[in-house]
Amino acid sequence: MIREPGSTRSSEAIRRILLDPQNKKMGQATELLLYLAARAQLVEEKILPALKAGRVIISDRFEDSTLAYQGFGAGISRHTIESFSRFVRGSLKPDLTFILDIHPQKGLARGGRHDRVEKKSDAFHRRVRNGFLTLARQNKKRIVLLSTDKPVREVQQQILKHLKRFYG
Amino acid sequence: MIREPGSTRSSEAIRRILLDPQNKKMGQATELLLYLAARAQLVEEKILPALKAGRVIISDRFEDSTLAYQGFGAGISRHTIESFSRFVRGSLKPDLTFILDIHPQKGLARGGRHDRVEKKSDAFHRRVRNGFLTLARQNKKRIVLLSTDKPVREVQQQILKHLKRFYG
Repeated sequence: MIREPGSTRSSEAIRRILLDPQNKKMGQATELLLYLAARAQLVEEKILPALKAGRVIISDRFEDSTLAYQGFGAGISRHTIESFSRFVRGSLKPDLTFILDIHPQKGLARGGRHDRVEKKSDAFHRRVRNGFLTLARQNKKRIVLLSTDKPVREVQQQILKHLKRFYG
Repeated sequence: MIREPGSTRSSEAIRRILLDPQNKKMGQATELLLYLAARAQLVEEKILPALKAGRVIISDRFEDSTLAYQGFGAGISRHTIESFSRFVRGSLKPDLTFILDIHPQKGLARGGRHDRVEKKSDAFHRRVRNGFLTLARQNKKRIVLLSTDKPVREVQQQILKHLKRFYG
């Protein structure tokens, strides 16, 4: 059975702090630690119990996002992020990762720039995208890079095709 | 001039999550990362600018508390805590630390057991106290250990005496 890990009370509260546009002075170290705290709670409260129950986990964002946003985007060293992340995820690693790529300007135009992360500079969002593309190049076996500059249905079908191959 | 570093919007929001008794399932990794996130924000937004302006900082809790609560109390390794903590505080270290010691049962009897941390087990609070006492023994030059099992005024006077000696 495929289930979303969902969210927890603490991780939702942390997410609200991270997205609150009023937290204008939030430092990059704070941001990294908050993302990791929310993930730690999700791993402990939802992901590990679900894996133990034999479920398949679909998660929206994991370590790659932290490397892209806090590493490539905000400039925190990869070594620091990877060592902190290992504390949070233990030996957990996704088997398969989809990166849904789009040019930052198009992506932001779709959803607007409402929250604290979306409001960051264009240069930041370009570095993040470049980060995701670099990670995809460095992890060709695990990461499937898909352009989303096409109808949603086509992207869906590509994802399904890869999933079927993976589980087939 | 002596000033309290105060708190920041983000660190107050983080503190509310940490103390909320409803967050019953909060894991130890989440807790450590949240404390460090709040501290990272305080260091960046308040402590570093105040030090640059030549001020003296008085802070209620810093790395020693993390070692006592999340290390000795919750069992996270000292190496892990120190490496995260160095990322948060950089080269910042207190010149002088006062540990106001009291038997956990007496301390909790004074303030009650309202928040999520106070509600932890007696065994946890005993390990935390033992942690503080160990840190005091390991850092005799920096840490002044004071019993608070006496009138507040006496404790105040002892602190003042140490401060005068330090600044004299």
